[in-house]
Amino acid sequence: MLKTLDSLIDKARSGKIRRLAVVAASDEPVLEAVKNATREGIIEPVLTGDKYLIDQLCEKIGFDLQGIEVLHEKDAYRAAVRSVELIREGRADIMMKGYISTGPLLKAILDKEKGLRKGGLLSHIALYETPYYHKLLGVTDAAMNVAPTFEEKTDILLNAVELFHKLGITSPKVAVIGAVETVNPKMEATVHAAMLAMMNRRGQITGCLVDGPLAIDNAVSKEAAEHKGIISEVAGDADILVTPDINSGNVLYKTLGFLGGGVSAAVLMGATVPVVLTSRSDTERSKMLSIALAAAME
Amino acid sequence: MLKTLDSLIDKARSGKIRRLAVVAASDEPVLEAVKNATREGIIEPVLTGDKYLIDQLCEKIGFDLQGIEVLHEKDAYRAAVRSVELIREGRADIMMKGYISTGPLLKAILDKEKGLRKGGLLSHIALYETPYYHKLLGVTDAAMNVAPTFEEKTDILLNAVELFHKLGITSPKVAVIGAVETVNPKMEATVHAAMLAMMNRRGQITGCLVDGPLAIDNAVSKEAAEHKGIISEVAGDADILVTPDINSGNVLYKTLGFLGGGVSAAVLMGATVPVVLTSRSDTERSKMLSIALAAAME
Repeated sequence: MLKTLDSLIDKARSGKIRRLAVVAASDEPVLEAVKNATREGIIEPVLTGDKYLIDQLCEKIGFDLQGIEVLHEKDAYRAAVRSVELIREGRADIMMKGYISTGPLLKAILDKEKGLRKGGLLSHIALYETPYYHKLLGVTDAAMNVAPTFEEKTDILLNAVELFHKLGITSPKVAVIGAVETVNPKMEATVHAAMLAMMNRRGQITGCLVDGPLAIDNAVSKEAAEHKGIISEVAGDADILVTPDINSGNVLYKTLGFLGGGVSAAVLMGATVPVVLTSRSDTERSKMLSIALAAAME
Repeated sequence: MLKTLDSLIDKARSGKIRRLAVVAASDEPVLEAVKNATREGIIEPVLTGDKYLIDQLCEKIGFDLQGIEVLHEKDAYRAAVRSVELIREGRADIMMKGYISTGPLLKAILDKEKGLRKGGLLSHIALYETPYYHKLLGVTDAAMNVAPTFEEKTDILLNAVELFHKLGITSPKVAVIGAVETVNPKMEATVHAAMLAMMNRRGQITGCLVDGPLAIDNAVSKEAAEHKGIISEVAGDADILVTPDINSGNVLYKTLGFLGGGVSAAVLMGATVPVVLTSRSDTERSKMLSIALAAAME
């Protein structure tokens, strides 16, 4: 059981050090986070991007580039392609988005011949440490998939489970969220949830324990679940919350952070390597923790 | 500005005392809440329902019925009809759901000839007191309307604004929530939000200040909004969050309560009087605060 995000830093430090390919690294907050993660011994960076700008920014923030590989690529998309190559050649293990839009970054990652595809969907998963829960809580998908079909929701679930496996949790508990805990044919989220739960029971989805539909209260509070007469190993002890769509996922993610005192780390899963994708409004600590999360995976 | 839920109790006490019609009152937790609210001088109850069962339960919980009107109606729907009559005759001012399903209760309220219709939609609104915000935060709709059309979302917004007006806030700030703060034709929530914001600017929606789409972070944090370059009087200071649908509304409502240390009061708006509708998993305090919220409205 993972209780704190700090444990990710310990985990990342204790294994073989990971090489982080930073795509279009000429972005001050990103370089700051990479500098901190390097100093903490969490990763070893390889920077791609405009070397002139990178040098300037690194001097400004006091990031000594001695011994650090910088591959000059003025064009951001070319920097993404170069970073993907580094991964494919085994010269880097994980990836981070810098000063590049998400579109061209994904284009390079999803390239059918030269990309980092694995067959499934890319999805966003955040791990939250909150004062109101007894362990880290996975939230997916808050940022990538707008209105996932059933097949896409299955991929989202499997990507999150894979992340937990890579952190050493062999059978994470997954709550598929609905507004109610009963199956209602007029509420698609509850239908998807029931299907995923039964697929888990029938051995079509393995390596985890799935229950749903569960509302947030049932998923995180055994007492609330008991009030509703719900008997479930997942209720009150979920590791992962799979939300109905991006609206509910984003509300969950941001409410935990901005109205719940939570701190999070987040990555994209679904490619051959985890991709760190921080947002400008993330705190310094949250950015470093996201790097640690990617580096902590086995 | 309302900062605490306790201020609702003060407000309810200070005005003319409201008569609360309790529909099918033979429900122990509901009677407990009514007893507490009566003792606190928040309301004066009128009970409808199975008098025999009500007497029994009141004796059990030590609720002295002397001087309290109890109208005997064995059938729950009949009790609802009777309560609606009490409101229409001016013998009660607000209403509360007891041991009756939501369906028959709404049937009695929405009856075209003898009900409590006002023309618009019924919707659920909760007021949250949370350690992470500087005032009470309205959340709508977490429980009633599954996938509101644009017209229905307008009613949901107007019902919430009416609640704030009745609490003395003349121009509440309304954030219409999306997963992003940009208008995206592929994300209906952002389209609805843009329409509502512009309708407010054009004077089609009055008595409030509407902005959207805003994501949760932009709505409640000025700093997060500034990071995104958003200039808005609503950003960071919203009174009301209108969510895209029941999935996101329910996630917001329950995350604030179960993963955010918040306490809430909630009512149904849209009928001629507010209707208190508590859930079994609500705390004692939350149930009493919901009664106080209904009683505090002018």
